[in-house]
Amino acid sequence: MRSDQRNESSLRPITIITDFLQHPEGSVLIQIGNTKVICNASIEDRVPPFMRGQGKGWITAEYAMLPRATEQRNIRESSKGKVSGRTMEIQRLIGRSLRSVVDLDNIGERTVWVDCDVIQADGGTRTASITGAFVAVALAFNKLVKNKVISKMPVTDLLAATSVGVLPDGNEILDLNYQEDSSAHVDMNIVMTGSGEFVEIQGTGEEATFSSKQLQTMLQLAEEGLLTLFEKQREALGSIAEKIVKATSAQGEE
Amino acid sequence: MRSDQRNESSLRPITIITDFLQHPEGSVLIQIGNTKVICNASIEDRVPPFMRGQGKGWITAEYAMLPRATEQRNIRESSKGKVSGRTMEIQRLIGRSLRSVVDLDNIGERTVWVDCDVIQADGGTRTASITGAFVAVALAFNKLVKNKVISKMPVTDLLAATSVGVLPDGNEILDLNYQEDSSAHVDMNIVMTGSGEFVEIQGTGEEATFSSKQLQTMLQLAEEGLLTLFEKQREALGSIAEKIVKATSAQGEE
Amino acid sequence: MRSDQRNESSLRPITIITDFLQHPEGSVLIQIGNTKVICNASIEDRVPPFMRGQGKGWITAEYAMLPRATEQRNIRESSKGKVSGRTMEIQRLIGRSLRSVVDLDNIGERTVWVDCDVIQADGGTRTASITGAFVAVALAFNKLVKNKVISKMPVTDLLAATSVGVLPDGNEILDLNYQEDSSAHVDMNIVMTGSGEFVEIQGTGEEATFSSKQLQTMLQLAEEGLLTLFEKQREALGSIAEKIVKATSAQGEE
Amino acid sequence: MRSDQRNESSLRPITIITDFLQHPEGSVLIQIGNTKVICNASIEDRVPPFMRGQGKGWITAEYAMLPRATEQRNIRESSKGKVSGRTMEIQRLIGRSLRSVVDLDNIGERTVWVDCDVIQADGGTRTASITGAFVAVALAFNKLVKNKVISKMPVTDLLAATSVGVLPDGNEILDLNYQEDSSAHVDMNIVMTGSGEFVEIQGTGEEATFSSKQLQTMLQLAEEGLLTLFEKQREALGSIAEKIVKATSAQGEE
Amino acid sequence: MRSDQRNESSLRPITIITDFLQHPEGSVLIQIGNTKVICNASIEDRVPPFMRGQGKGWITAEYAMLPRATEQRNIRESSKGKVSGRTMEIQRLIGRSLRSVVDLDNIGERTVWVDCDVIQADGGTRTASITGAFVAVALAFNKLVKNKVISKMPVTDLLAATSVGVLPDGNEILDLNYQEDSSAHVDMNIVMTGSGEFVEIQGTGEEATFSSKQLQTMLQLAEEGLLTLFEKQREALGSIAEKIVKATSAQGEE
Amino acid sequence: MRSDQRNESSLRPITIITDFLQHPEGSVLIQIGNTKVICNASIEDRVPPFMRGQGKGWITAEYAMLPRATEQRNIRESSKGKVSGRTMEIQRLIGRSLRSVVDLDNIGERTVWVDCDVIQADGGTRTASITGAFVAVALAFNKLVKNKVISKMPVTDLLAATSVGVLPDGNEILDLNYQEDSSAHVDMNIVMTGSGEFVEIQGTGEEATFSSKQLQTMLQLAEEGLLTLFEKQREALGSIAEKIVKATSAQGEE
Repeated sequence: MRSDQRNESSLRPITIITDFLQHPEGSVLIQIGNTKVICNASIEDRVPPFMRGQGKGWITAEYAMLPRATEQRNIRESSKGKVSGRTMEIQRLIGRSLRSVVDLDNIGERTVWVDCDVIQADGGTRTASITGAFVAVALAFNKLVKNKVISKMPVTDLLAATSVGVLPDGNEILDLNYQEDSSAHVDMNIVMTGSGEFVEIQGTGEEATFSSKQLQTMLQLAEEGLLTLFEKQREALGSIAEKIVKATSAQGEE
Repeated sequence: MRSDQRNESSLRPITIITDFLQHPEGSVLIQIGNTKVICNASIEDRVPPFMRGQGKGWITAEYAMLPRATEQRNIRESSKGKVSGRTMEIQRLIGRSLRSVVDLDNIGERTVWVDCDVIQADGGTRTASITGAFVAVALAFNKLVKNKVISKMPVTDLLAATSVGVLPDGNEILDLNYQEDSSAHVDMNIVMTGSGEFVEIQGTGEEATFSSKQLQTMLQLAEEGLLTLFEKQREALGSIAEKIVKATSAQGEE
Repeated sequence: MRSDQRNESSLRPITIITDFLQHPEGSVLIQIGNTKVICNASIEDRVPPFMRGQGKGWITAEYAMLPRATEQRNIRESSKGKVSGRTMEIQRLIGRSLRSVVDLDNIGERTVWVDCDVIQADGGTRTASITGAFVAVALAFNKLVKNKVISKMPVTDLLAATSVGVLPDGNEILDLNYQEDSSAHVDMNIVMTGSGEFVEIQGTGEEATFSSKQLQTMLQLAEEGLLTLFEKQREALGSIAEKIVKATSAQGEE
Repeated sequence: MRSDQRNESSLRPITIITDFLQHPEGSVLIQIGNTKVICNASIEDRVPPFMRGQGKGWITAEYAMLPRATEQRNIRESSKGKVSGRTMEIQRLIGRSLRSVVDLDNIGERTVWVDCDVIQADGGTRTASITGAFVAVALAFNKLVKNKVISKMPVTDLLAATSVGVLPDGNEILDLNYQEDSSAHVDMNIVMTGSGEFVEIQGTGEEATFSSKQLQTMLQLAEEGLLTLFEKQREALGSIAEKIVKATSAQGEE
Repeated sequence: MRSDQRNESSLRPITIITDFLQHPEGSVLIQIGNTKVICNASIEDRVPPFMRGQGKGWITAEYAMLPRATEQRNIRESSKGKVSGRTMEIQRLIGRSLRSVVDLDNIGERTVWVDCDVIQADGGTRTASITGAFVAVALAFNKLVKNKVISKMPVTDLLAATSVGVLPDGNEILDLNYQEDSSAHVDMNIVMTGSGEFVEIQGTGEEATFSSKQLQTMLQLAEEGLLTLFEKQREALGSIAEKIVKATSAQGEE
Repeated sequence: MRSDQRNESSLRPITIITDFLQHPEGSVLIQIGNTKVICNASIEDRVPPFMRGQGKGWITAEYAMLPRATEQRNIRESSKGKVSGRTMEIQRLIGRSLRSVVDLDNIGERTVWVDCDVIQADGGTRTASITGAFVAVALAFNKLVKNKVISKMPVTDLLAATSVGVLPDGNEILDLNYQEDSSAHVDMNIVMTGSGEFVEIQGTGEEATFSSKQLQTMLQLAEEGLLTLFEKQREALGSIAEKIVKATSAQGEE
């Protein structure tokens, strides 16, 4: 039994609120346990300089925390005048992951700006960000399709992420909260597509190392948890989820 | 009649949700029309270097917008590596205003960090921030009193803010939304205490100037609107509001 | 009686030296009491990116102090690598104020850079900057008209600024020196046009608040002081001042 | 057959030159194929502020490339005034990896600064950096032991890293050069200890995703390649390598 | 004959106004031709961290130009957020030069901040800065001696600087104005003490090189010009100049 | 006799390795005593904005040290986020010097980026950088000529640099190592062309001043040392050196 009464393979309660804010093309509030992230997707009608003239689009992500999202207040990165290494790592991960399930050749020279703003943090903020951002991006592209800006849904598969780890007692667990994350010997984030392919695996054991056997157990826990996350995404997206599946099938037939 | 059917002296609907987030000592979500600001107050057990050893406390404020709080996405200030002049002006205003109704001599060497994060913007974000931040600060100090960290409520009066302006047609109006603010010839922010004293007056006419008579009309509109805002703050604070009034009376008797 | 023997409604001695430096299109040294500011106006034949193609001009201001303009040496902002919030507030105020009395539609796609460099500070540096910068801007535009770069004087009215405040003893005073400014409970800056319209009102009471009655007294003191400042500007500008009045009258007749 | 005539499971030629530079406590030039990295370990007799007073040590890493280490010249990060996200990710990875095989409790309040400077890049610079830096760190600690600054070798195991990936043709390969890395669909870096435990797994498929089966094949390729890298490290370290093994055994016996 | 009617070995007119500003311990306005520099010396009662506890003092210099000191307006370095290489070179030169004629062992743990602010530039701003700054520093130390903060004048010799160069026609000239400096093939700055010793020689020929013979001619021109500059400094310093000579003699006798 | 057994006019051993790295158009490792600098020259097919459209080329230099090139580790300038004044001075000096012996009118609109990275420092890093960078630049231009990108060798003369100084005992010496440089009273760097013309003279005496006689002795020592350095450059360049001499002669004949 874990401190919050879950067993090793349980996720925390998940809520995905769509159309959370008024202005963004796609806007989501995702809650996983006590972790709450606002994920907004904005469409800009141009691409960064290094991509101009290729007829392709781009997706870029930014991640931040409210200063008091955490137990102790953190200094705002705009006040420090620079973005931390941790933040950069996370925003690169989010962008890279989302790009793997979007057909960038079919969105024109557009940039999708994905903003993940953690308003409350209790572990797993980067995986919650990916899971929520995927929904926001799908909503935004759906709006483009509806407005006939692009002709078909360019999202090719579902995408979600979760964390797994090894506790000091050697037990592998799914979906670590902050307390667990702080004490875990191994921490691994898995990003996966709805069809079960890996997009990212990032596993690290700073205080400790991990064996091949532990790796396999963690991978299995993650895969199970991701099934539930995909289910929640499908519920949140409703009929839009079907368009994604169709996109995938259609593409597969080519 | 204004575009949203209000008359000149009407405020937009106001909601103040207290204890909005889990970690901050005081946390508020304030909504004024479509403007939504998360106001968090954090207590730190030390003061900035320039104040050490004086036995007094300090209140400092930070203000930011989510990149897509607005119709067009803004570049995140942490990415730009610096805080804009507008942001600095606003956070200096919020901090200064709050310090005018807190007895800094009676809170020990503590800093209250006030974070105002605009998640959706439709005009009046700085005045909504002040009005919401006041409630967050009162909640935070109330917690300190309850935990016997300090002996009595150091908040000496209510504090709220609103905007007034002059439309191109010459009409003075209260509580401008974004569309009105963009076209207004004069824009004025008024910060006032519950007992009707001015804390700040900032009036500016970039495209135009304003007469003494217009100034008086605007001041009157603001005062009326502020009565409603104080009422909403009292509702949100419940019995805590009474402690503030008492603090003021007790002080007045000295 | 005030520490420097003035009464409540007295300004300090004012000197405005025109053509102070050789290179700028308009150059002024303004002295108000012991406060000395070099105000230079430079004309650049293009506008900032956000204004290109509109056929209009722009005025932007920068403000700085020599490190030893003050009693204690301040760290140079170029060494700190960033401009303080106070500096930004002041330069935004100066630029906004000057734009209110210049017909930007009639100066072509040009930028007026206004540089206010305080070489000696004794209170009231921002209001002295505005008062001096106005003269520098008028000189610069006069040169453009003389050189037939633009066809008529685009300055539509005189513009000056002064400060008023409330001393701890409750007395309202005009034109605060540094010592008065440091102890004042309320500090208010008023920017006004030669025809008596308000351009900016910025009043703040950090240690204290102020009543409606005090506000009215301060406004009256400011208006009186400004009459003298306009007189000094007219003397400094000589026949150029008449062109401004004519410009205004002509415009009024349209 | 790969472009440089290697088969899927071949490493490129490896050279590790110890005591490469004169000043650092540990200095190594590692060459893997055409990739050349200078790895220096410097001992500083204090720890960062957040660790003071705990009696423990710390290891931190910095990574950089000469501007012309690459085919196209890159702008120097000191000229840009900030470190890129990629650089931060790599230096965090190097530091974290090294800390997993050093007993930080037994080195006193000291910081090991590890500088990895790539002078020539042909793929795999981060894994070469880790493999070379490990040797430099071992040399530096050996010097501390020899000088009786610390009583025993605090390095608890060998540590090396390599890359694996999936080519567009679907083949999994070991130790990608730059050309392979640019076209690979999946890129994975594995950091492992001499006793075969994982320290870090970072796998990413931006253009594509990867299956569970591909993951297993890549892990196996990496493990085989790492055996050779450990052998090269043992050769370079000579008798020092034995002290590390002994340290591990001794520790294991506790 | 040169464009301003001077012959090769003529200096431009020199004016040194002492006590130019009110707050600094030493304040000078130096004018050399159309070049005008405000030189302020400020005494701070502590030294930079790297010098603490040695019982010695330090002199550090900062140099800046008003944006419109020049024919074309320059961007303010505080706005750019960094100091240019040229500025750094000049302030290092000024500081180094002044330190060569001050007995830093006899001023206690104090820092002299020398601020050279060019308000109008017409060539030779760095040499004018050194010549003026020397006077400001002597005034500041004289105040310390008068106030019995230190027991004797620590300035050991006069110090001045001038420029020499080679025109495109091959003629060597003294004290280049901006127009000459722009076209000169060789530009050399010489800093010298009152007793004729070199402190700095910085000669550079970007477009061209220079021969040994040209070097000797330039050195001779500089030495002659410096005699006049020392005379102007003695006039400006009055009786203080004698204390410097005495300091030197007394020291010479030791 | 000096600490390393040299006499006053001896250079340390010099090695110049050409084609040191694979990617740069010109790449050199220069060793002077224990000082080792990698000098790379990269050709870019465009010039900086301020030079566009003039049909001319440009040479710019960057200089850096590995953090542990020195006895004590230095903070990396990319981590500090800014380049020091010393670094800027050195890179300006290197660029200026190289431009004096290259016919920039005959290289098209190209920029030569010269990167001098000190991997081990023992005094004289800036003069070693110039001497090595010259060879790298000549190699790079030779490649351009060979590839018929430009029609003839644009390098017009050899260029090398060395240091001279005055020890505390009053002796003038050539080619100071770090220990000598730290204690020297006067430090002078001389950059000269193969035909014996001066390009730069930078002499400074912070702790002390120097006489005209000392200056002449130092100049003579430098000239002698430079003869050896030119000889080493000729050896390293082989037949390319002859093309430079021819270029010069041909030019001289025009």
